[in-house]
Amino acid sequence: MSEEKLPTRAENFAEWYNQLVLRSEMADYAPVRGCMVVRPYGWALWENMTAALDKEFKATGHVNAAFPMLIPMSFMEKEKEHVAGFAPELAVVTHGGGEKLEEPYVVRPTSETIIGHMYAKWIKSWRDLPVLINQWGSVLRWEMRTKLFLRTAEFYWQEGHTAHASAEEAQEEMYRILDIYSNFAINEAALPVIKGYKSDTERFAGAVITTSIEGMMQDKKALQSATSHYFGQNFAKAFEIQYLDKNNTLQFCETSSWGLSTRMVGAIIMTHGDDAGLVLPPRIAPIQVVIVPIFKNDEEKNKVMEVANRIFAELKAAGIRLKMDDREGVTPGFKYNYWELRGVPIRVEVGPKDVEKDSVALARRDVPGRDGKSFVPQAGLVRAISGLLVEIQDSLLKRATAHRDANIHDPKSYDEMKSILESGWALSWWCESKTCEAKVKEDTKATTRVIPLDQPGGEGKCIVCGDKAVKKVYFAKAY
Amino acid sequence: MSEEKLPTRAENFAEWYNQLVLRSEMADYAPVRGCMVVRPYGWALWENMTAALDKEFKATGHVNAAFPMLIPMSFMEKEKEHVAGFAPELAVVTHGGGEKLEEPYVVRPTSETIIGHMYAKWIKSWRDLPVLINQWGSVLRWEMRTKLFLRTAEFYWQEGHTAHASAEEAQEEMYRILDIYSNFAINEAALPVIKGYKSDTERFAGAVITTSIEGMMQDKKALQSATSHYFGQNFAKAFEIQYLDKNNTLQFCETSSWGLSTRMVGAIIMTHGDDAGLVLPPRIAPIQVVIVPIFKNDEEKNKVMEVANRIFAELKAAGIRLKMDDREGVTPGFKYNYWELRGVPIRVEVGPKDVEKDSVALARRDVPGRDGKSFVPQAGLVRAISGLLVEIQDSLLKRATAHRDANIHDPKSYDEMKSILESGWALSWWCESKTCEAKVKEDTKATTRVIPLDQPGGEGKCIVCGDKAVKKVYFAKAY
Repeated sequence: MSEEKLPTRAENFAEWYNQLVLRSEMADYAPVRGCMVVRPYGWALWENMTAALDKEFKATGHVNAAFPMLIPMSFMEKEKEHVAGFAPELAVVTHGGGEKLEEPYVVRPTSETIIGHMYAKWIKSWRDLPVLINQWGSVLRWEMRTKLFLRTAEFYWQEGHTAHASAEEAQEEMYRILDIYSNFAINEAALPVIKGYKSDTERFAGAVITTSIEGMMQDKKALQSATSHYFGQNFAKAFEIQYLDKNNTLQFCETSSWGLSTRMVGAIIMTHGDDAGLVLPPRIAPIQVVIVPIFKNDEEKNKVMEVANRIFAELKAAGIRLKMDDREGVTPGFKYNYWELRGVPIRVEVGPKDVEKDSVALARRDVPGRDGKSFVPQAGLVRAISGLLVEIQDSLLKRATAHRDANIHDPKSYDEMKSILESGWALSWWCESKTCEAKVKEDTKATTRVIPLDQPGGEGKCIVCGDKAVKKVYFAKAY
Repeated sequence: MSEEKLPTRAENFAEWYNQLVLRSEMADYAPVRGCMVVRPYGWALWENMTAALDKEFKATGHVNAAFPMLIPMSFMEKEKEHVAGFAPELAVVTHGGGEKLEEPYVVRPTSETIIGHMYAKWIKSWRDLPVLINQWGSVLRWEMRTKLFLRTAEFYWQEGHTAHASAEEAQEEMYRILDIYSNFAINEAALPVIKGYKSDTERFAGAVITTSIEGMMQDKKALQSATSHYFGQNFAKAFEIQYLDKNNTLQFCETSSWGLSTRMVGAIIMTHGDDAGLVLPPRIAPIQVVIVPIFKNDEEKNKVMEVANRIFAELKAAGIRLKMDDREGVTPGFKYNYWELRGVPIRVEVGPKDVEKDSVALARRDVPGRDGKSFVPQAGLVRAISGLLVEIQDSLLKRATAHRDANIHDPKSYDEMKSILESGWALSWWCESKTCEAKVKEDTKATTRVIPLDQPGGEGKCIVCGDKAVKKVYFAKAY
């Protein structure tokens, strides 16, 4: 409950972020290398996110299940690219029950291998397909440089793993999920993400196609917020996931996988937060409204609390997630700062004058100061607040979209691009060669983020080498 | 989709159970020592259980959070009884990121230690208390003899960990949760469990008091289905969880922890299942109603499907969880067996004659054969089915309660008790000595299950040694 000010975003964006995560009690550092504790306030946000996503997964025919957190080391080695990609990040269990294990296990960094093993056992015929299973849980990757929510050794996510009869169906699945992710990011989290393909360099280890949604943070760095992969028959061949088709011929399945993690919590913080703290999108905010009663003596308290309690009951009955801050011994100003730090979308102030006038004061978290304040009648308050929550949600998305669009540029030359990439994104023609990609990275530290699904069509000249290019790509520095 | 019959319960209860879990696709063996995969049908049941429990936890002021799956080995050693209890069951991570770790981590067998460490950091003042945090996840214990759901190395559960200012409050919490568990078991899972205290021998490693709910399976063995512990200041002292009280004096907190796991899925199967398969309580069944349309040709199909689809839409709109089994190429009889194996509470059959008569046939899963069948008008079907679901739920609880009560005995002598314990429970006076407890175990393999909260009062003579006893205890063989 420190009243010390946060560093500003302009002063030090990285430090603003870290301090904000800690002080708003979203998460804390754990006494385990590179790991975090997601505190109740952060977890409540994640629960709202998972509930919205889970509903969409189920509406599109997916079911949940649970696979072991340990994977036999030998499984990891069955798909060559996969093991090469993940080997450096593995945590290894060598002892169990007081004895050295004959074969070590790894703590899952992702579950393609063990789920592939089970699919090989379960899938026999075309009648068993598609298999559309999702798992909510955590995975562990021994990351070198960690940052709360954005990159931690253990992180929380869902991982979907599907098996299909044809390449077409598996790719449709990949795109279907990419749309679910994108719609979720835009409509629930107010993150104006861009959908696209990853370059070969940035692909998931073992994938044929990796798609992702990419967002721009306030510091103009890019953050990959979720990925959806098509594996072709890579994992099906490595794990012998086969089925008898309608002609009784044995075929390999085509598989996909896709994941969205607590990383997106970081995206929400870095997209919407301001110098006073979090700014949470109303649709997923753990607390949408906080009521702060204001009084100086018992007589005022009685009058004010009667109104505050009635309002609380009305809003609660309307399904609004809310909190009454009736703590004594702290000032209203302290409470304002406290809930601003925590990003609650609307503050309702009820004081003696409000009681007299049958009104209350509403303060919007997304518009600080007087501009965000309004005085509304107590009658019809549920409707006014419900409407304002929608307005705030829209406003956050518009603001983030405007910021994104103002910082995406179309450089005319490679030199111009280099200057743009110091603080912004470039959308440029690219010949798709690794050489040009590597040169950009060396010169600017920026990488290819996504080759957007929406392409202008036609062709142009690669911004780096000048050769023919048929795709535009986003270059940006990234988390 | 094997049509092979299950072993009967009378023939081989253990084999009936294993085969049933596998064939109903609740779970499967994993390629990891002692671990299971919870398949989508089993996980859907667990999700319904967790939703009901989570609602109760939140209604009583608890919040969820997430702590790391790894725990520094040194943490485990801080509480003497705790480490002694868990050391033999630990899985140890010795390598991470390709290097040997300076200090090994254990995969959490339970999280008192790491949560205690964080509480010590977060709790400063009496104003911070109580802390009421729950976590949904999985833990790992290197068990020697495993059995699907009942005892697996990794299992899924919730673990609540709370810190309080006084012993009284911490004990109140322990009892509050025990009540939540007991009400959940009885009202949602139709398990007539008994609440009580564990003996010193059966206490959780590090606890001052352990309470549990205990159920009787159809083979008359006992199954501990959830536990709620009071730790006094044991963990607070080991982890220095302290607060400044209102007089500004530093005090140790009093803590509790409590857990309910996927073990209860095993209890549900072994309490309600029959020789044809699962019998799931309607309130938590993943599918409450299955509709089986019956037809022989396209003309019949058109008529029947029109009615079946209309019924489906009506039931779905009423919030009933249901499935239409319109698979072609398999007989109605095959479908009946298929859904009986999976324990769906009500089957709705719609054939050409039903269409003519504006009726349908309902078959209750809990009453096999003709006795469980009724023919009801299509008009008012939602109401009829909703009522029948309630009736089935009640009926399962009554049947299980009757079975339990018929198999709890009050032996007049130790010899009589020994004979009772071959196949039943004894509720007997016990002097609370470890010697008598050990003798019973040696003679009969039965253990003290719980010292029930409801005691007859007064005193009697220990059923083993004849000394004065003030408590009655349940003796039984247990899983």
